[in-house]
Order: sequence, then structure tokens, then C-alpha cells
Amino acid sequence: MLAAWLALPLHNAGSLQRTIGRILELHRTCWLLDHRERLVESAWLGRGRYRSVGWPRPRRTRCTVTNQAHVLSLYRGGEPFRTDSSAKHFKVMDQDGEVNPLTIAIVGFGNFGQFLAKAFIEAGHRVVGFSRSDYHAVASQLGCVFESNADELLERHHPSVLVLATSILSTEQVLRQFPTEKLENCLVVDVLSVKVYARELMLRYLPVSSDILATHPMFGPESGRDSWRGLPFVFERVRIRRYERCEAFLDIFRSRGCTLVEMACQEHDHYAASTQFITHTTGRMLAELKITSTPINTRGFESLLAVVETTVRDSFDLYYGLYRFNPNAKEELNKMQRALERVRSRLEEYDRLYQAAESKRQ
Amino acid sequence: MLAAWLALPLHNAGSLQRTIGRILELHRTCWLLDHRERLVESAWLGRGRYRSVGWPRPRRTRCTVTNQAHVLSLYRGGEPFRTDSSAKHFKVMDQDGEVNPLTIAIVGFGNFGQFLAKAFIEAGHRVVGFSRSDYHAVASQLGCVFESNADELLERHHPSVLVLATSILSTEQVLRQFPTEKLENCLVVDVLSVKVYARELMLRYLPVSSDILATHPMFGPESGRDSWRGLPFVFERVRIRRYERCEAFLDIFRSRGCTLVEMACQEHDHYAASTQFITHTTGRMLAELKITSTPINTRGFESLLAVVETTVRDSFDLYYGLYRFNPNAKEELNKMQRALERVRSRLEEYDRLYQAAESKRQ
Repeated sequence: MLAAWLALPLHNAGSLQRTIGRILELHRTCWLLDHRERLVESAWLGRGRYRSVGWPRPRRTRCTVTNQAHVLSLYRGGEPFRTDSSAKHFKVMDQDGEVNPLTIAIVGFGNFGQFLAKAFIEAGHRVVGFSRSDYHAVASQLGCVFESNADELLERHHPSVLVLATSILSTEQVLRQFPTEKLENCLVVDVLSVKVYARELMLRYLPVSSDILATHPMFGPESGRDSWRGLPFVFERVRIRRYERCEAFLDIFRSRGCTLVEMACQEHDHYAASTQFITHTTGRMLAELKITSTPINTRGFESLLAVVETTVRDSFDLYYGLYRFNPNAKEELNKMQRALERVRSRLEEYDRLYQAAESKRQ
Repeated sequence: MLAAWLALPLHNAGSLQRTIGRILELHRTCWLLDHRERLVESAWLGRGRYRSVGWPRPRRTRCTVTNQAHVLSLYRGGEPFRTDSSAKHFKVMDQDGEVNPLTIAIVGFGNFGQFLAKAFIEAGHRVVGFSRSDYHAVASQLGCVFESNADELLERHHPSVLVLATSILSTEQVLRQFPTEKLENCLVVDVLSVKVYARELMLRYLPVSSDILATHPMFGPESGRDSWRGLPFVFERVRIRRYERCEAFLDIFRSRGCTLVEMACQEHDHYAASTQFITHTTGRMLAELKITSTPINTRGFESLLAVVETTVRDSFDLYYGLYRFNPNAKEELNKMQRALERVRSRLEEYDRLYQAAESKRQ
């Protein structure tokens, strides 16, 4: 599996930096474990862009790579390279090391599932689409296989990662009908726009031995059409025992340039209600108004037109899902109505003052 | 004044095209009159970009340059070159022709007035700022003179163009107090965001011998900070007798790359209510909600943040002006509230159906 290891002591920041320079082109993700083999930090090395002396400092412990690291191992493509936790060594997989692609099942093979499948395939992984509807043709066009029977999906393909790309409204139903007991050693990932709810569902329906990653790519086939660079990808490692596999999955998003944002599900829902839900509601309000392009659009109006276009392209089911399953959404909707009412009141108050002043002048 | 004329018959499209190619670098605006010397069409020749065989076809007559044009004269910088209307000739001012800059008074020398002054000065015109507040320092920094007495403004500087860069709310008051009877041979231009009202005010307060141009640059110091390229500049020639001067003024906007949109004031207000007023109202509603950037902004949400930023930077006076003096604004505000109410009703209706279906399933 490994052609060679490269090891150097960690007390010398200068040599570490030079070594990182040399290996930069070969490897993309490194991860750092503490002495109990818990994940402390992972970092991604992009081509030509890395923080040289400082690897990113771990946020949750005082341990830093250059003086207190216990084990740091680099891997590529999800290969599980755990190393001796006693050595204060910086270990690197050789370029010739075999790459082990993941087999990723995508449950729910609609627009968003297909959009993800394309990226997974481009990253060199095996993808199996799964849905009760027939997507054989689409799948073969994308370059992946397709199954519509869950048992066959698991027995034939043994996916190590299973991505729930179902709609918010259908996810519970899907999990209920799925042979979840067979997902024992799987990493299960959801991509729902509501996270507290998704986390709860996965913890409730999945076997305790499965790994769980809750994610929300804050983009879709429209906004991520040309590039994913700089687009936020939110995640919480809900229950992860096999770090390498999880990191290999996150790597797909890192290597396309997403900004990875690690965040508790609850915090996500708090932010999402005051951003994504408000954006969707504004878009749908303006769509009801039937705003359209004119010969005299201001820049601001063009931005609003773009918002309408992207929000109405998403299903009403998604919008309703945000409303129903984000515990903060209803209050945000109330706030929007009150805000518009206040704008109106201010105009009317101003109007009274202006007219009074006018009649005095005349 | 004119160093040379270049004339060629109009029946030969090939030679016309070659000649246009040669004069392209020298001249920017041409205009076409019909046999009664009424303006049929004006066209702008940008550096390296012109429609070669076809000058833009006149929209209001069937007359085209290559076969039926009566008079076509080119001028630069507002020089009034009318020519013999009997000759079927294409006449061109020589490069060495003297340029006659306009003297432009800007009445109301706040943010927007100063923003315009800068562009007028850069185009080579003389600018005189005018306001009752003291802007001497700002004016001298911009490279123009400043007056705070209207009679002195007119007697000392004899402006040929007077731009009303006053706020919507103050314009009538300013016109009432201004010695408008002295604007007999002036071109008066307004830049208000409401056009029917501005047109009426100008027709009511200005002497019949003045020329009137109603305009609305659909941008400001913020949105036009880096470039005016592609930004709409709406105008109606309300009452123009001296085309050249009017075209020389419009040239300032043409040559900076604005998209010139000729449109009746009424039509402008119809469009503006359903674009600009809605944008401002959306921006103010979201500002009331205090939306702010988060680590997980979607692209759509970032657009909304930008809309808020630009709308709240404008004064509430401007927003109120749009509301009060655009006859369509009140109805648009009603429509927005109803639209938001409909979005809410749809969500609640969906909720009832979903919960009914859920309780059946369980």
C-alpha cells in the first residue's frame, strides 16, 4: 500500500517547513491526533497555498504541530494510515502510494443527488445512485451505476459512505423504509438544509456503530454551476470513529475550493433562519409580485431578480421544509412582516409631517 | 471654427463604411435630421465599436442613412453644425475643429451634484456649483467654481446648461426661489428619480424659450463608483430646440459607457415603481430586520446584504420622495405586503396538508 514513509522530528520548525514545501504537490490533507488518537485538527494543503511555519493551530487543544504534536499522518484519497502514536514524527505517504477510492451510495437521485454524483466521480470515487424512481439512464450518462433496491445496493456494492440526498420532507420516510441495520460500518452523510432535524433523524434511525456526518453545502446546481470556489460547506462530525474516511469525503469539497465551516447543527439552524430562509422568503415575495427585467434596472434590482430566479427554481417542498423543520423560521417570518409594516408606518408618519409643513408654506 | 469638412455621397454604402472607419477616432456622436430638420436619430461612435454598414436604423421613420438620408452631420463637444438640408452628403468635422466646452451650472451641490460635477469636468466642460450651503472648498478641490447667489451665478458665468441636482422634496422650493426668467436660452436638465413630477415642475416654472431635458441616471456615487459602463441613463427630450447642445450633454454619459434609454417620463415612473421603489423597500425591510453577514452566507443572501448596504446609504428623504412623488409607488407597497401575506398563507396551507398526511401515516 505504502511505497515509502518520510519521517522527521517535529522540534525543528525550519526543516518541517522545507519538507512541507517538498511534499506539497503530492498530498492534500493531513490530520493531527492527540495522544488518545482523537482528532485534534485536519488541514488541507492546496497547490502552492499552505500556511508555512504554522500549520493551522488546533482550536480545541493547546497542542501545536511544531512542538507538542503526537502523531501527524498524511494520507491521500481516504487511505487509512494510522501510525504509532508514541513517535513525535511527521509522517508522509509517498507519491506512489496506492489510492483507495471510496464507494459512495447516493440515496435520493434527483437534481441535487446527481449534482453531487458528478463531483464525487470527478474526484475519482465510485458512485452508486439509489432511488425508487428509475434513474438508470441518467446514472449511466454520469458514469455511475444505479440501484432501485436497497438490499441489492448494499450487498452488491458495499458502500463505505452513504449520502442522504433526499428532500427534507421525505428523509424520515426513507430512513424508516431503508435496511439501516445493514449500515453498521458505513459513514452516513446528510446534505439537508436543516441540520438539527437531520442530526436527530440520523441518530434515531442509524445503528450505533455507523459514523455520522451532518453537512449542508450552501449551494446547489445553480449557484455552484461554474465553480464551488469560496462557497460555504457547513458540517458537524456528529459521530466519527474513522477519521480518514470522513476526511477523504470532506476532501472532495476542500479540493474544489469550498470554504469548509465546522459548526454545531444548532448554530447552523440559527444562522440559516436569518440568512437562507429570509433569502427564500424575499425571493418568493418578489416572485409573487412578478418582478421582471426592464430597460432601466438598477444594479440593486438586478440582484433581486437573480435572487428570485434561484429561489423559485428550488421546489416549494424545500422552502416548506426550511419553514417547518428549522425551529427559528416561523419567528423570522413574523419579523419580516413586522419589518415591512414598520417601513410603511415610517413613510406614512413622514407623509403627515411633510404635508403639514407644505400647507404651512402655502 | 471648422478646420475642414469631409463630404461624400450617401448612395455608396462601401465608401461610407470606409470613411466611418477613418473618422472613427475623431468623432463621437452623429445625428440625422429629416428633410424638415427634425431629429430622426442620433448615434454614438465609440472607439473601435460601431455598427459598420448600418448606422442604427431610425426607429421613427423609414429613412435610413445609406439610401434616404437627407442630412447627417457630425459634431464634437456640442459645436452646433447644422448643414444645408438639400445635399445628400455625409458631413464630418475635421479633427482640428475647435471644441466648444459647455458651461454647466449644477444647482444643489450635495453628494450627487458633486458626483456629476466630477464627470462633467473630466469630459472637458466648465462647471459652476450652486447651493445655499457653502461648498467653496469642495468645489475648488473638484476643480470648479462655486456660487451661492443665483443672480451672480447667471450673470458671471452665463451657463448654457443648468442641472437640477436637488432632492426630490426640495426641487419645487428651489425653482420657486430661483430667477428662472433668466434661464431663457438655457438647457435645463433634472436628474430626479421621479420623472412625471420633475417634468411638470420644469414645464411650470421655466420660461418657454428654455430647453428641457428630463433625465434619471439609474446609479449614484456608490453603484457608479468604479465605472458607468452599462449603467442605464434614462432621458426624455421634453422640449429641445438646440439638438447639438442637448446631444453634447448626453455625450458625457454616452462616452462613459452608460446605456442611454430614451423613454417618456410616465413610462419611466411605471418601471421605476416596480424596480427602484421595490428595491429600496426590500432593502429597508431587510435593514429593519438587521440582517448581517454570517460564516454561512449563500450567494443569494450576499446579494441581499449588498442591496441593504446601498439602499440605506441613500437618505430617507430620497426614499420618501420615491414614495410620495411616484404615482405608482403606494400601490407597489400594498402589493408587496399582500405578496408576503400570500407566501405566509401558502406555507400555512401546506402545513395543514402535511400534518394531516403525517397523522394518517402514523
